[in-house]
Amino acid sequence: MRTLKLTLAYDGTRFVGWQRQAAGESIQGLLEEALVRFEGAPVTVHGAGRTDAGVHALGQVASVQLTCTHAADALLRGLNAALPPDVRVTAVEAAAADFHARFRARAKTYRYVIRNAAIVGPFERAYVWHVPEPLDLDAMRTAAAALVGTHDFAAFASAGSETADTVRSISASGIRVLEAGHEGGPAPQAPTAGDGPGLLVYEVTGTGFLRHMVRAIVGTLVEIGRGWRAASSMSTLVAGRSRADAGATAPPHGLFLVRVDYD
Amino acid sequence: MRTLKLTLAYDGTRFVGWQRQAAGESIQGLLEEALVRFEGAPVTVHGAGRTDAGVHALGQVASVQLTCTHAADALLRGLNAALPPDVRVTAVEAAAADFHARFRARAKTYRYVIRNAAIVGPFERAYVWHVPEPLDLDAMRTAAAALVGTHDFAAFASAGSETADTVRSISASGIRVLEAGHEGGPAPQAPTAGDGPGLLVYEVTGTGFLRHMVRAIVGTLVEIGRGWRAASSMSTLVAGRSRADAGATAPPHGLFLVRVDYD
Repeated sequence: MRTLKLTLAYDGTRFVGWQRQAAGESIQGLLEEALVRFEGAPVTVHGAGRTDAGVHALGQVASVQLTCTHAADALLRGLNAALPPDVRVTAVEAAAADFHARFRARAKTYRYVIRNAAIVGPFERAYVWHVPEPLDLDAMRTAAAALVGTHDFAAFASAGSETADTVRSISASGIRVLEAGHEGGPAPQAPTAGDGPGLLVYEVTGTGFLRHMVRAIVGTLVEIGRGWRAASSMSTLVAGRSRADAGATAPPHGLFLVRVDYD
Repeated sequence: MRTLKLTLAYDGTRFVGWQRQAAGESIQGLLEEALVRFEGAPVTVHGAGRTDAGVHALGQVASVQLTCTHAADALLRGLNAALPPDVRVTAVEAAAADFHARFRARAKTYRYVIRNAAIVGPFERAYVWHVPEPLDLDAMRTAAAALVGTHDFAAFASAGSETADTVRSISASGIRVLEAGHEGGPAPQAPTAGDGPGLLVYEVTGTGFLRHMVRAIVGTLVEIGRGWRAASSMSTLVAGRSRADAGATAPPHGLFLVRVDYD
């Protein structure tokens, strides 16, 4: 038996999420089915972050124990041949016998992308939240920075969550602004006719995140940007530990699991 | 009657192309149907470039004559409300009475994107041609540069084309290389596990292009990159004027109409 670390990128648009569900296609399910072709027996993979329906990943990490002896690069090629093109395995590496993608994760980084302009380009429409109104970026930045540190994030826990411990440590929480007519990616972005700063990219790194936590933070940040809440209200909100006090949950399709770090 | 200049961006994936066809959705058709809501009568739009099925646009230009008196910004908003999200009008401007998007075009710029790595990321899969084998970039650059100037491009005309005049002038023809793990766009690109230079972006500007010409050029460039043809063969090929001698036509989904220039 050997333990492998798999790194994955996926477009979450059409999936029920990372985790296998009773109905619908999940990334975990597709990956396990692809691995069965090599292992010849049922396989269970563990993902570092259980991304929700519609959430994307640039660097999800999964661990799996296999008895088959295929070389890592043969597995990489074979898995990608078996998987649909919206799920790619970007790396297969040997790991320590006790490696577990979720329990060994030291930090995770999520990114949330907001198109703050009149028009959403045709190539980004599945990957950004469209917020056309003017946003107070300074207030949003102040509020985002207030999340850094170790806090009880119960205010951002999803209702009905079974998680008892809601304390998490956030090491980075900030907003970058990209040009409105940015054309960096392989799929060149359309120029937008909108005013305003254009593209807001929120990135947050922490030891772990409660279910829907990043989307609830982003929803709250946008309410601060709209002037519905003061920038200083973020600290009060966290201290209050009441989910009812936080902002609406931002839609899933602007969220990306960027990276998972291990020791 | 007034003449308007419309600038459009679209994801060509699901369309039969710019031009209205007997069956299937075209960008021209959708735009004309959206304009009828304002004009209250049939409308004909003229596109600068008649992009083929599957070809994308960042800056297609169309001209239209209207009697309705809606302000340009009201038309912009109204058209985008009426159009599906994979087609966006990015600008509506008043134009000279005799403005015609195709006949007045001074130059067009097309971009073709090739992922030259083992893996195509899930976010770029609809916008790049996957060429995993090593490519001789120097040879491709030499061949691309040989196209600059005024030439008879019959060798790159599609078979059965009705165009009599196959002489065109190309002012720029070159290849840029972007990093393999490039993450510039709003839809952040997945890191790829591939070797090699990563992302090849061919851009060509000219007075006009024959049908399938850019894709036939790219197909030929890739055959040169693979070593199937010498870099110096490009000039011989153009001089020979025989379509049978050129390379295979590259797939449509890597091609973007970037920009149309007018005096």
